[in-house]
Amino acid sequence: MAKEKKLVQAITSMDEDFAQWYTDVCIKADLIGYTSVKGCMAIKPAGYALWENIQKDLDARFKATGVKNVYMPMLIPESLLNKESELVQGFAPEVAWVTSGGQEKLTERLCVRPTSETLFCDFYSRDIQSHRDLPRLYNQWCSVVRWEKTTRPFLRSREFLWQEGHTAHATAEEAEERTVQMLNIYADFLENSLAIPVIKGQKTEKEKFAGALHTYTVETLMHDGKALQSGTSHNFGDIFARAYDVTFTDKDNTVKYVYQTSWGMTTRVIGALIMVHGDNSGLVLPPHIAPTQVMVIPIRQDAEGVLDKALSVKAALESAGVRTDLDDSEKSPGWKFSEQEMRGIPIRVELGPKDIEKNQAVLVRRDTREKTIVSINELPSVVPQLLETIQKDMFLRAKTHRDSHTYDAHNYEEFKEIVNNKPGFVRAMWCGDPACEEKIKADTTATSRCIPFEQEQIADTCVCCGRPAKKMVFWGKAY
Amino acid sequence: MAKEKKLVQAITSMDEDFAQWYTDVCIKADLIGYTSVKGCMAIKPAGYALWENIQKDLDARFKATGVKNVYMPMLIPESLLNKESELVQGFAPEVAWVTSGGQEKLTERLCVRPTSETLFCDFYSRDIQSHRDLPRLYNQWCSVVRWEKTTRPFLRSREFLWQEGHTAHATAEEAEERTVQMLNIYADFLENSLAIPVIKGQKTEKEKFAGALHTYTVETLMHDGKALQSGTSHNFGDIFARAYDVTFTDKDNTVKYVYQTSWGMTTRVIGALIMVHGDNSGLVLPPHIAPTQVMVIPIRQDAEGVLDKALSVKAALESAGVRTDLDDSEKSPGWKFSEQEMRGIPIRVELGPKDIEKNQAVLVRRDTREKTIVSINELPSVVPQLLETIQKDMFLRAKTHRDSHTYDAHNYEEFKEIVNNKPGFVRAMWCGDPACEEKIKADTTATSRCIPFEQEQIADTCVCCGRPAKKMVFWGKAY
Repeated sequence: MAKEKKLVQAITSMDEDFAQWYTDVCIKADLIGYTSVKGCMAIKPAGYALWENIQKDLDARFKATGVKNVYMPMLIPESLLNKESELVQGFAPEVAWVTSGGQEKLTERLCVRPTSETLFCDFYSRDIQSHRDLPRLYNQWCSVVRWEKTTRPFLRSREFLWQEGHTAHATAEEAEERTVQMLNIYADFLENSLAIPVIKGQKTEKEKFAGALHTYTVETLMHDGKALQSGTSHNFGDIFARAYDVTFTDKDNTVKYVYQTSWGMTTRVIGALIMVHGDNSGLVLPPHIAPTQVMVIPIRQDAEGVLDKALSVKAALESAGVRTDLDDSEKSPGWKFSEQEMRGIPIRVELGPKDIEKNQAVLVRRDTREKTIVSINELPSVVPQLLETIQKDMFLRAKTHRDSHTYDAHNYEEFKEIVNNKPGFVRAMWCGDPACEEKIKADTTATSRCIPFEQEQIADTCVCCGRPAKKMVFWGKAY
Repeated sequence: MAKEKKLVQAITSMDEDFAQWYTDVCIKADLIGYTSVKGCMAIKPAGYALWENIQKDLDARFKATGVKNVYMPMLIPESLLNKESELVQGFAPEVAWVTSGGQEKLTERLCVRPTSETLFCDFYSRDIQSHRDLPRLYNQWCSVVRWEKTTRPFLRSREFLWQEGHTAHATAEEAEERTVQMLNIYADFLENSLAIPVIKGQKTEKEKFAGALHTYTVETLMHDGKALQSGTSHNFGDIFARAYDVTFTDKDNTVKYVYQTSWGMTTRVIGALIMVHGDNSGLVLPPHIAPTQVMVIPIRQDAEGVLDKALSVKAALESAGVRTDLDDSEKSPGWKFSEQEMRGIPIRVELGPKDIEKNQAVLVRRDTREKTIVSINELPSVVPQLLETIQKDMFLRAKTHRDSHTYDAHNYEEFKEIVNNKPGFVRAMWCGDPACEEKIKADTTATSRCIPFEQEQIADTCVCCGRPAKKMVFWGKAY
C-alpha cells in the first residue's frame, strides 16, 4: 500500500493549488515531458494518442462536409506576411524569424508560420481562376510557432499542433454559412466526443482575429471556473482577397474577389479535457476519445487460470469494438489501479480467482468509482453500454458544473462582486462600446468571452456604464 | 476531341525529356502547386491524399511492432545540436537558423529541425532511468527543413514531410535487430503497397548517415534508369548515448549507455511512385495506395437512367470495399478519360445507355489500357480481383524493368561503358577503399547505392583498382 500512496500523493490536490494540480496531471499521466527547448514541450505517447483520436474524429467531420487536406510551407517571406496590415500588427510581436539558411544570410527573412492565411491567399491567388474552381475547402494539420512569454503545457506553448482550415467562396453568404458550419462542427465535437459543453457566440471587435470581419468562438468553462477559448471560426469577407489579389471570373464574366474563412482547433483542447473532467486521482477521459477504454487488471495473476481468463476477457471486449488493454506487469493490483486512474481510463475490469469461480468480474467506473459485478459472458454487451452511460454522465456533470458557475450581473457592483468571489462565467448586458470592455478588464481582469448566439435580455442597461444595452455578453477570467 | 488533345499534349513525352515529364505530371495530376516561398512547394489535395494513405499504411505497420507516436519541438538550440560533432558537420551546411523571436534577438540561435536525433536524445536522457524503461520505440510524423540549393517537387525541397523513428535499447544486439526490422518494413511497404521492387543493403562509410555506426537502405530504380534512396534505417550503437549522456541502470545495478536507432521515410516516395509507374498519359497509381481506385464515367449521362445506374454501380463498388468516385461533371467523356488517366486512377468503369441495355459495363485498366466487358452484377466481385491483378502486374513490370536495367561490370572499362551508355544499376566488386569510391564518382558521377545483403561474387578484383575484392556493390547515378 505504501507504493500506491506514493503515486497518489504525488499529485497536488486541485482545491489546494489548481495550477500545480494541472501540471502534476500532465506529468504523472505521462502526457508530456520537458525539453531543453524553452517554452516547448515533448508530447509523450499517452498525450499524442489523445491527439491522434482528436485528429481522426475531427478530420472525418471535416471531410464529410467536402473539406480536403493539403500542406503549405512552414516558412513565410516577410513581404508576403506584410501584405495584410492588421494581420501583421496582430502577429508581428510573436513570430520567430529565420535569418540564415546554411552558411548564408538570407536576403529576406522568413517567419515560422504563426498561422497560414498569407500562404493560403498566395496559393489561392494562383490556383483560383473561375467560378468553377469555387468553393475551395482546404485544411492542414501542422504545427505553428508563437513566441509566448509565459507558457503552460497544452494551454500556451511556443509551438503547438493544430488544424487550420482555409476556404474560398464565390459569395459572402456562402462564406458566412461555412463560418457557422465549422463552428457547429467544433461545438458538436466538444460536446459529443469530449463531453465538454460549449457556449457558442461571436467575439467582440476587440477580441476578434486580426484581419477578420468577425470571429465566432466556442467557449468552455474549466473546473476552477476559468474560461477557455476552445475553437474559433473566422469570416474574412473579401479583406484578405483584396490584400492578396485573390480573384475569380464569375458566371457573368466579371472578375470578382473571393470571400474567405478560416477556422482552427489546437492541442489546447487536451488542456480542456484535463481541466473539465480531471480529479484528485488524475485524468478522467470521456470514452469516445479515450485511447484505452477499458483496462483489465488481474488479481492474483499468478494463480492458475487467471491470466488466461484475463486474456480471453480482453479478446471478447476487443471483438465487441472496445479499446481494451491488459495490465499483466509485475506491479501490485493496487498500484495498477492507481495508474489506471491516473491515466483516466474510463473502466477497469478486476478479475481474480474468486471472481472466475463465480464466472464474474468487477467493473469500476473511473468517473464515479461505482462498482458493478457482472457475469463474464455479459461483459461484451454491458461494457459498451456502460461506456455510453459514462460519456453522457460526464457531459451532464460538466454541464451542471458550468451552469451552476454561471451568474447574472445586473449592475457593476454585482458584476465586480461576482468576478471577485465566484469563479465562473458572468452574464451581463453591454452597450457595445469597447471603452466599457476595456474598463471591465482593467477593473477586474475579466474579459468578454463572447456575445452568445442565444441572447437573453437580463437588463436594459450596460452593466458598466448604465447606457442602453445592446447585447448580452459572457464575461470571465480566461486561460 | 480538341480539348482532350490539349490536356494530353500538355505533358512532355518521357522519352523526350524525363525531367520535364516529371514536373508536368506533378502539376497536371494536381499533386503540387508552386508558392512564393523559394524551394518549397504546396502539396495539393491529390498529392496529400497519397501521403495520407502512405501514412496510414506505414503507421499501422510501425504500431504492429510496438512503436508509439510522439511529438518533439521543431526548434533545436545550437548548443544541443553541437553535442554530436559528426552530426553537426553533416547537417550544419543545410540548416535554417531562427535568430529572433517577437521583437527580441535570441541569446542562443535555434535551428529548424533537419532531423531530430538531438531532441530525442535530450528527451531520452531525462525519460530513461532503468532497464524497465527500455526499449523505447518512438516515432513522429512531422516536417523538416534542409537548405537545399536546387530543388525538385517531392525529390528535394527545402521543407519536406516525413516520419522519423527513434528507438533506445538495452543491448547492441537489440538495436541491430530493430534497425533491420524497420528496413524490412520499408521494403515490404515499397514492394507490396507501392509495387516498387527494392534492393536492400548497407551504405558505405562515405554514404552513411552522419554520426551512425552504419546505415541500411532500400534502393529503387526509376523509369529513366536513375536510382532513388527510398528509406534508410540507422544503427547508432552508443555513439549518441555517449554524446548526450543517455544512460540506464541495468538489472545488475550498473549504469550503462543505451543503444539507439533511427529510421525515416519521406514524401520522396511519392516521387518514386511517379517515376516508377507513370507513363506519357500521366500518373499510374498502384491500387493499394490509390486514394481513388475506380472512376465511374457515364457515357451520354443525360440519357434516361444513365446517372442513376452510375450511382448504383458506385454504391455497389463502395459496399465491396472499393474506393470509388463518379465523374458526373459537364465535361465530355473523352475529357474525363484523360483526367482519370492523368490522375492515375487504376480502373475506369464506362457506362452508357447501350451498356445498360445489355446490363454490362466496360472496365479499362489504367496500367495496360486493356478493356473488359463485365456484367453489372459481377462488378463487385470482378473489380476487387482486378485491382489485385493490377497491383501484382505493376510490381512485376517494375521488377522486370529494374532487372533488365541492372548490369554487371567486371572491369573498369566495362563499368564506364555501362554507366555512360546504359542507364540503370551497375553491379561491380569493390575492394572497400573509399578512394575507389571517390574515383568512380569523379570519373562517372555514379555513386555507391549500397552493399546489398544478397551478395554474389561476380569477380575477384575491385572494378576500379584491381586489388582483391571484398564486396559486391550496387552503383548508379541517383536522384
